[in-house]
Amino acid sequence: MNETIALLNRHRSIRKFKADPIPEDRFTAIIQSAQRAPTSSNMQAYSVIAVTDSDKKKTLAELAGNQAYVAECPVFLVWCADLYRLKAACEPEGGADIPASTEIFIIATVDAALAAQNAAIAAESLGLGTVFIGGIRNNPQQVSDLLGLPELVYPVFGMCLGYPDEEPTQRPRLPMRAVLHYNGYSDHAYRDSIAEYNEQLRHYMLTRKGGGRDTTWSKEMAARLRTNRRLHMKSFLANRGFFLE
Amino acid sequence: MNETIALLNRHRSIRKFKADPIPEDRFTAIIQSAQRAPTSSNMQAYSVIAVTDSDKKKTLAELAGNQAYVAECPVFLVWCADLYRLKAACEPEGGADIPASTEIFIIATVDAALAAQNAAIAAESLGLGTVFIGGIRNNPQQVSDLLGLPELVYPVFGMCLGYPDEEPTQRPRLPMRAVLHYNGYSDHAYRDSIAEYNEQLRHYMLTRKGGGRDTTWSKEMAARLRTNRRLHMKSFLANRGFFLE
Repeated sequence: MNETIALLNRHRSIRKFKADPIPEDRFTAIIQSAQRAPTSSNMQAYSVIAVTDSDKKKTLAELAGNQAYVAECPVFLVWCADLYRLKAACEPEGGADIPASTEIFIIATVDAALAAQNAAIAAESLGLGTVFIGGIRNNPQQVSDLLGLPELVYPVFGMCLGYPDEEPTQRPRLPMRAVLHYNGYSDHAYRDSIAEYNEQLRHYMLTRKGGGRDTTWSKEMAARLRTNRRLHMKSFLANRGFFLE
Repeated sequence: MNETIALLNRHRSIRKFKADPIPEDRFTAIIQSAQRAPTSSNMQAYSVIAVTDSDKKKTLAELAGNQAYVAECPVFLVWCADLYRLKAACEPEGGADIPASTEIFIIATVDAALAAQNAAIAAESLGLGTVFIGGIRNNPQQVSDLLGLPELVYPVFGMCLGYPDEEPTQRPRLPMRAVLHYNGYSDHAYRDSIAEYNEQLRHYMLTRKGGGRDTTWSKEMAARLRTNRRLHMKSFLANRGFFLE
């Protein structure tokens, strides 16, 4: 329909990167694009840490569960929800009590996600590849210490950025009727679509590059929900000042 | 640098829409683009409710704090974090206990945000306008009841979609050094930039279309943090099954 829509529909995560650095003007365009994302009440309640230091990237790769591409990509971005800067912003006005509420946690988390997604799209439009790294939430306190994050800032996810050195096939998504509802939620609209998707994903997983595996979406999801539950997040966040009241 | 980056950098929220409907093929392309957004472990833990019913849009406009454009846009999208479908997905595998954790709340909230941002970009690439509506969290229980949302689903934000009937000027964002850090967080990198941004935003607010107002970012943020705190979100979410443990 147009080049932007084609680009969005070509997206797949990249986990193997060339060593080539990212030219500075391109990197600037990526961050500028991130900054233009929508933000709740113009709060801009996020920050991004660009990690280029090899030792820090290596440590982050380990902390994220030994994901080698975190060390191998030329720039690893850590997208943070940031209420600390908002607190600083209020100082000329006599300061403000930042509520430790679930609501403002949602605002800052969503702001970080929207900015990050704009960055990812800008990057892909320039021929770069990306992968989101939720694994930094395996060890969020160590990640925060390594990056010197102050109170009221937490790392939501990481993102590898670099020139792709692989051409992975695209994983199929759920049929549209499984995620789109009209005027109200209707689960009967998607009950049958789960079986259909299980077959599609099974075919993809069997035939994908780099080794097939016999599984289904249901199998993957049941296994995923039983592992890697990161039950430390609540106390970690409280430690950063996000009490989710 | 290219058309996609230009598009991302042209973004501004639209709050006045023409009555023209959105052609079905364009709407489909928008939702398809949303579905291609990154998603944590392929969980696709979001749903979107397309509200086209006039009465429902009118009610939602009131629930969102009397935002007329919610009723006036041809399609109002409600982006939901959705773990209910994941629960259904696990049924063929003997079911799964969905942890009521902060971690999975983050996953589902971020999944919804990433999909929504792709939809917004696709829409803008087709000449449509959008505005995110956090106001649906003013009355999230009533919104959930109106849309028949089941347990483990919550409305993160809404989004008006339609052809723009205004040409608003673009609000400036923080200087880049205020949001971008290298290899570690450094607040001295942005302390002075807040004063600079206060002046920029003051100029924008004084001269913007539709009536000027003498304010600064610091003033706006201090006022914003004192009002509309939505302290009901924690108990509302617990009621939906998100206990944030």
